[in-house]
Amino acid sequence: MSGPIPSHEEHAGKVLALCGGVGGAKLVLGLYRVLPPDRLVVAVNTGDDFSHLGLHVSPDLDTVMYTLAGLANPATGWGRREESWSFMQALEALGGESWFLLGDGDLATHVERTRRLAAGESLTEVSEGFARRLGIRARLLPMSDDAVRTLVHTAEGTLPFQHYFVRLRAAPVARGFTFEGAERARPNPPLLAALASAELALVVICPSNPYLSVDPILSLPGVREALAAARAPVVAVSPLIGGEAVKGPAAKIMAELGVPRTQAAIARHYQGLIDGLVIDEADAQEATGMALPVEVTRTRMRSVEDREALARRVLAFGERLAGSRSRAARSERA
Amino acid sequence: MSGPIPSHEEHAGKVLALCGGVGGAKLVLGLYRVLPPDRLVVAVNTGDDFSHLGLHVSPDLDTVMYTLAGLANPATGWGRREESWSFMQALEALGGESWFLLGDGDLATHVERTRRLAAGESLTEVSEGFARRLGIRARLLPMSDDAVRTLVHTAEGTLPFQHYFVRLRAAPVARGFTFEGAERARPNPPLLAALASAELALVVICPSNPYLSVDPILSLPGVREALAAARAPVVAVSPLIGGEAVKGPAAKIMAELGVPRTQAAIARHYQGLIDGLVIDEADAQEATGMALPVEVTRTRMRSVEDREALARRVLAFGERLAGSRSRAARSERA
Repeated sequence: MSGPIPSHEEHAGKVLALCGGVGGAKLVLGLYRVLPPDRLVVAVNTGDDFSHLGLHVSPDLDTVMYTLAGLANPATGWGRREESWSFMQALEALGGESWFLLGDGDLATHVERTRRLAAGESLTEVSEGFARRLGIRARLLPMSDDAVRTLVHTAEGTLPFQHYFVRLRAAPVARGFTFEGAERARPNPPLLAALASAELALVVICPSNPYLSVDPILSLPGVREALAAARAPVVAVSPLIGGEAVKGPAAKIMAELGVPRTQAAIARHYQGLIDGLVIDEADAQEATGMALPVEVTRTRMRSVEDREALARRVLAFGERLAGSRSRAARSERA
Repeated sequence: MSGPIPSHEEHAGKVLALCGGVGGAKLVLGLYRVLPPDRLVVAVNTGDDFSHLGLHVSPDLDTVMYTLAGLANPATGWGRREESWSFMQALEALGGESWFLLGDGDLATHVERTRRLAAGESLTEVSEGFARRLGIRARLLPMSDDAVRTLVHTAEGTLPFQHYFVRLRAAPVARGFTFEGAERARPNPPLLAALASAELALVVICPSNPYLSVDPILSLPGVREALAAARAPVVAVSPLIGGEAVKGPAAKIMAELGVPRTQAAIARHYQGLIDGLVIDEADAQEATGMALPVEVTRTRMRSVEDREALARRVLAFGERLAGSRSRAARSERA
């Protein structure tokens, strides 16, 4: 390709982000703010979804939705800002289960989602309806409309995800994971369509937990193949900084699985799928000797400006990769 | 019986109150405060129950429960004191149905009740479990564990109760009522046991709406017969004062049905079931010429003291009736 590389603002192609909850949502917000919103498609992990108190709770979808709608709690990253907690207090007084915190405003999401699902809407229809009502102009998709449930195999037995993650604060030693139902689940058709589209400009694997947030998406039949076959570059943003995760148990799990907590290990985890890896400047020395293109930048996102800056770096990295021969390299690996 | 009539505090017999929501709950609170709590059994209308947003809502049970637990909103009579409304605001933002107000704390009752019912508990078990947790020492019973649904036949068609009562603010002209499912519903066994018990000292029909709150209870198979056969006196407290209801559409409905808005009409409504009627001092002139004993007192309950005073008058009236020959008169009418 000759001539100047078009800037991402001018480029018409779609950007597909794959993500889980809090960590991934930060980068998704950055992408949402720097891209024209109709260019962004977000496919969100639903392996964390569970039925609680009779309500269908989709923690990752909600985190991304609240984040893009400007409703997220900035202190926690999950839940809603200016939330009240009368429901939990009253529930405790009645002897109900109170280990999973549901704020009063947040509860509307779960009650209304449960009602619409029972009335026959798909999770995609519910999510898109909510996003529209909340003024989100990007496309927000559950990875599948079929139930996939992450199970965590631990030294203390097999645990449903939320029991491991919230109830037990990810304390048990992880031995492995199963994404129950994944082998029968249909990837969301718009997700597959986005991957197959000639208009796809870039796929971003967000800095979410590779094992708990990204692997459920990758476990859906055909998603790995569609990623490998996609014409657009695939870029992962590493969740590790200096061998630690910014948030959540990713580093703890790597240690428990006997995986070195290095950027090379993250690259190996996504081997055959990604064309490039974005790592933090704290790990710059790890960039040398990697078998794939690496972009070194600040990946810690404290402010909105951090989110936007990282998003711009990821988009620019993707544009460079699109013009290079690294696509061929990935195709060989796939 | 010779010797002094024992005061109700010393008397060991049970008092059974039949009631609906706000108006009835006021007198129930009075009874709860002046009686040893283990003497009080309350059977509550469930004809207003409905499924809303996928939740089982029991408005009358909740009003009585919150009232006896000291949690009721004193301004409205329904709902909880110091309630927050984040849920409704968030639900509206998502495009959910917002005509029926559910406070954040109140929602815990509906979510937890729905969960327990789905897990196989009966409505009685759920209600008694809640009452225990909230420190209510009287027995609080739904009239039945089976679904009975009040339908209001109006000039604008047949309406489910809450659509008539809340959504349309009882504006449509009422032509009649159906208690759907009542003919197949089993009255709550402890309700029938209380009526058949030799320990029963008094039955109080609270100043609830006769058509919408008391008739659903009376429509259950065997309840009228059990009331007529009860050895204890049955006393109704009229919901009318000066031809008007203190709250709610009772007087409006009487006018629409062509029933005079008089204490005599209330007595006729409960004919064959009651041994005495308690009416307000504003209607003292209506006491003359009634075919049954009438107690004239202040029935408007503004303060807690009003509730207690009315409860004491009702209990004393019942004790006098128990010693008179009016029981025979009722038996003849039944």
